[in-house]
Amino acid sequence: MDLQAILNTIFDEMQGQSDRGAVADYIPELAQVSPTHFAMSICTADGQSYHVGETAVPFSIQSVSKVFTLALALGRLGDQLWTRVGREPSGLAFNSMVQLEHENGIPRNPFINAGALVVTDAILARNAPREVLGEILRFVRQAAGDDDIHINHRVAKSEQATGHRNLALAHFMRAHGNMHNAPELSCGVYFHQCAIEMSTRQLAQAGRFLMGGHAPSRLLSPARVRRINALMMTCGHYDGSGDFAFRVGLPGKSGVGGGILVIAPGRASIAVWSPGLDAQGNSRLGTVAVERLAQATRWSVFG
Amino acid sequence: MDLQAILNTIFDEMQGQSDRGAVADYIPELAQVSPTHFAMSICTADGQSYHVGETAVPFSIQSVSKVFTLALALGRLGDQLWTRVGREPSGLAFNSMVQLEHENGIPRNPFINAGALVVTDAILARNAPREVLGEILRFVRQAAGDDDIHINHRVAKSEQATGHRNLALAHFMRAHGNMHNAPELSCGVYFHQCAIEMSTRQLAQAGRFLMGGHAPSRLLSPARVRRINALMMTCGHYDGSGDFAFRVGLPGKSGVGGGILVIAPGRASIAVWSPGLDAQGNSRLGTVAVERLAQATRWSVFG
Amino acid sequence: MDLQAILNTIFDEMQGQSDRGAVADYIPELAQVSPTHFAMSICTADGQSYHVGETAVPFSIQSVSKVFTLALALGRLGDQLWTRVGREPSGLAFNSMVQLEHENGIPRNPFINAGALVVTDAILARNAPREVLGEILRFVRQAAGDDDIHINHRVAKSEQATGHRNLALAHFMRAHGNMHNAPELSCGVYFHQCAIEMSTRQLAQAGRFLMGGHAPSRLLSPARVRRINALMMTCGHYDGSGDFAFRVGLPGKSGVGGGILVIAPGRASIAVWSPGLDAQGNSRLGTVAVERLAQATRWSVFG
Amino acid sequence: MDLQAILNTIFDEMQGQSDRGAVADYIPELAQVSPTHFAMSICTADGQSYHVGETAVPFSIQSVSKVFTLALALGRLGDQLWTRVGREPSGLAFNSMVQLEHENGIPRNPFINAGALVVTDAILARNAPREVLGEILRFVRQAAGDDDIHINHRVAKSEQATGHRNLALAHFMRAHGNMHNAPELSCGVYFHQCAIEMSTRQLAQAGRFLMGGHAPSRLLSPARVRRINALMMTCGHYDGSGDFAFRVGLPGKSGVGGGILVIAPGRASIAVWSPGLDAQGNSRLGTVAVERLAQATRWSVFG
Repeated sequence: MDLQAILNTIFDEMQGQSDRGAVADYIPELAQVSPTHFAMSICTADGQSYHVGETAVPFSIQSVSKVFTLALALGRLGDQLWTRVGREPSGLAFNSMVQLEHENGIPRNPFINAGALVVTDAILARNAPREVLGEILRFVRQAAGDDDIHINHRVAKSEQATGHRNLALAHFMRAHGNMHNAPELSCGVYFHQCAIEMSTRQLAQAGRFLMGGHAPSRLLSPARVRRINALMMTCGHYDGSGDFAFRVGLPGKSGVGGGILVIAPGRASIAVWSPGLDAQGNSRLGTVAVERLAQATRWSVFG
Repeated sequence: MDLQAILNTIFDEMQGQSDRGAVADYIPELAQVSPTHFAMSICTADGQSYHVGETAVPFSIQSVSKVFTLALALGRLGDQLWTRVGREPSGLAFNSMVQLEHENGIPRNPFINAGALVVTDAILARNAPREVLGEILRFVRQAAGDDDIHINHRVAKSEQATGHRNLALAHFMRAHGNMHNAPELSCGVYFHQCAIEMSTRQLAQAGRFLMGGHAPSRLLSPARVRRINALMMTCGHYDGSGDFAFRVGLPGKSGVGGGILVIAPGRASIAVWSPGLDAQGNSRLGTVAVERLAQATRWSVFG
Repeated sequence: MDLQAILNTIFDEMQGQSDRGAVADYIPELAQVSPTHFAMSICTADGQSYHVGETAVPFSIQSVSKVFTLALALGRLGDQLWTRVGREPSGLAFNSMVQLEHENGIPRNPFINAGALVVTDAILARNAPREVLGEILRFVRQAAGDDDIHINHRVAKSEQATGHRNLALAHFMRAHGNMHNAPELSCGVYFHQCAIEMSTRQLAQAGRFLMGGHAPSRLLSPARVRRINALMMTCGHYDGSGDFAFRVGLPGKSGVGGGILVIAPGRASIAVWSPGLDAQGNSRLGTVAVERLAQATRWSVFG
Repeated sequence: MDLQAILNTIFDEMQGQSDRGAVADYIPELAQVSPTHFAMSICTADGQSYHVGETAVPFSIQSVSKVFTLALALGRLGDQLWTRVGREPSGLAFNSMVQLEHENGIPRNPFINAGALVVTDAILARNAPREVLGEILRFVRQAAGDDDIHINHRVAKSEQATGHRNLALAHFMRAHGNMHNAPELSCGVYFHQCAIEMSTRQLAQAGRFLMGGHAPSRLLSPARVRRINALMMTCGHYDGSGDFAFRVGLPGKSGVGGGILVIAPGRASIAVWSPGLDAQGNSRLGTVAVERLAQATRWSVFG
């Protein structure tokens, strides 16, 4: 199977696509990104890498960061994390209040905003936000094997200024006793983790610890790797998760910066970036690109 | 890997379990079933079978039937079915009205009751209910390679007498134009398909067409097989689907009769039966049993 | 105070109104009614009557009938009715399922469709629908002091053919044990009570038993009269009830036929008819007309 | 009609009541109040006053303050206030997020917490919180004709420390552009207005401007008085408003401190205080007491 040829074909098809969705506009820094960017990188289990497009351009990983903080939290806290956050698809938009209200401030899963805030709050514990951010960054750099990964502080500031919906979620969970730090602190760390910038090269490398297979990662136990993949499959694309599973058949996590991290268990870690989003807030072309890849490689976990 | 030994170990563990959940009590016939039954059958891709427990005792497959009618509907109608039913987890109980009301009578997925009613209504088209029931039964028998599969008409009658919630769903969708036959007719067929009885031997055999892999089924194209598996993964256990994916890592579909059909893509079709249910309406011991099987075999699709 | 002059002024103003709302179109018979009709009648506590417009033309009273069946049910069953239906505004549309689902099949109040179905089911008890319909009609005729009030059977048939949403509500409540007769029977009676036709002359007369004051009605005790008025104030206009109370300040009950019955306690019974509806399903001009009347007469109960 | 005798009878009956509900416990200062307190005061349109119980003991007026800030906001901003807050019962608990989410951050009415926060935010405009608080206090003192009315700063501090749910509402509305000041500022003013303490004597006097009738208030126009009364009738007791209208038949506004302000339009302003609350957060005995008063006086607005 010639993965480079497959990537090239996908790249050509994507160049011709006119319906690229809309770039996230709720923070100025993201709104300025051109929808014409496209990049895709694959790291395979045998150590090879394949790339097409602007794979060295860093973009804002946004909610893809939730995968790394979940891994970090599970490594540190273990299964007690699940007393504070569920493992079910929410059936609702990524920033919905409704479910929280009906379920006593316990978010449905760690990949909706409320759940990710709980995970970050759990990592934060009583530590200084600056230290915890350093730890998150170290984890991502270690996973990627690359120290040239940074937080864009302008983006983080921007999110802080407009992040009232996340602050609302955090205060609401605080009212239910499920936010242990001051909402401003946990949200502050969260806004900064979302502002981490990576290229698809870096992101595909950073995803290798979720490949599983014969070479278990030192970052996380095989059982936890499987579970994070399961959560990415059922909850990784908000209320578009079912459709992603249906079309692509691989676990993945998207971010409103237009990036998606996709895992082909035992085979590959894949990163794609195209900034235009669909109605559910997932990269429109990115989804199409991994759908094509899954068809061409037959990497679907579903047979 | 000695699958029989694994099954025997699981069987022994299950015998010792005291917390078996509660048998479904909303229809008298199901309420009379003893919670002590247990059976598990595996059909592997290489044509072998493994069994433990009461694997020849027929039980009411109930919602597991939704997998067969979905396959039948996709084979007959193709992708136009998806204009009438979605592919997303609902995040709500199996018989919820709320989502339908907010989304104009389009059920979230084919495995919640409303969605299964749409699928049955689509198969029914303008044909006679009796004929369509015959067709469903033929499909199941053909999949199982066994003609000794029947509908329990007492169970079907019982469901009809108590099925007001399903009739409410059907009338509601009819009001939105998404139920093409009289609600009584579509519900009638649905109640009968749910009353099909199979043993785990028969059910494991009937599930083989969803294994995919090297020997594609004549019943359904490989692409559709993958998609049904994806739907079973994200939506097969109602609002316990995320947890099943997290714990088991395999696509599956449960029924309130206590049966679960589980697919290990490329490897095996698995049927388990234990009548006691958990709070979400899924077989409690059945879930534990396939969790053990997945751990022992490392068949999780997630690495 | 010259009530006739006030009515004439209102009539003139209404003639000039171009934004009359949309006539209900969900049943053909109602859709054919011209939006240009307008009629308004007042019966005062001192036995006088005042009329303007087409006050002798019968129209479909639709949900205004819920006032009469509630009075009938309270007279027959007393306060035990309140175990099956609440007394709170629903905050939702008139035919919503959501509240029912969250509150175990107990409708919020007797003026949303679900609640009115429970009231009709309670009157029906185990009697023949035809007899019960006769009784409802006798109650309305007695209240109006006019035997020339009839059911439009074409309208009733029409509603039966398109009434799937009401059947859904009834089946849903039956599933919760809060519908004692077969849903088809209770819905059948309900569709017929809604199809009663009255002119504003007849409706204003029929509303006199709710005026209270010095000459108590033989149809209902003063305490029950007050309570029905309270329910009309808080729940009589679906999710437009708050706005009606705010603008008009009098208890009233609307129907999708464009009629509204309004009570000025101790002073008058008022009926208005204009078939065009606003977004909440209440007569647009009818509401404006009673708002003008309340301003001119200072009949608001709120000072 | 001997109002003092009526009050005495009510007092005696209330003394014998054992089921007094539970005192609000979400802030320590309120939790310490004894449930045995009871006081009731009436100011009539002819300038008389009637009192029974501990009518000189100040209590925390909490949400009763929403009536005064609404009057103040309407006086200052006029009807443009209604672009930011609705006039419909919410059908939900006083601090619900669900409705806000479905309706773009526009609260249903000014008497649920979200709506009151918008009203306070509107009064705050760009002014200093301290000045605005002074203005609110001046309005209340002027209404009561009594300068000895103060804010309990310990209570306000306590609310600030535990007010995460209100902060969540405020941030959520800020995200929708319906909170013009920083959430901390508007909530700060709100927590202080809720911490105003008044006796029933003072509260009944302060409510006189809502009596309407022959001696119009200088504080608010008769039309606005009617509208505030209408809102108190449909929304003044959260999701117990329908029941209060049904049982009492008078507009009223309750607070979790156990106070209720009730208006008999044209006749009287009534204040009652009993700290024990029912499930909806309204004073249990206070409601019973005004129900008895309405029965004895026949002051119901409903005939």
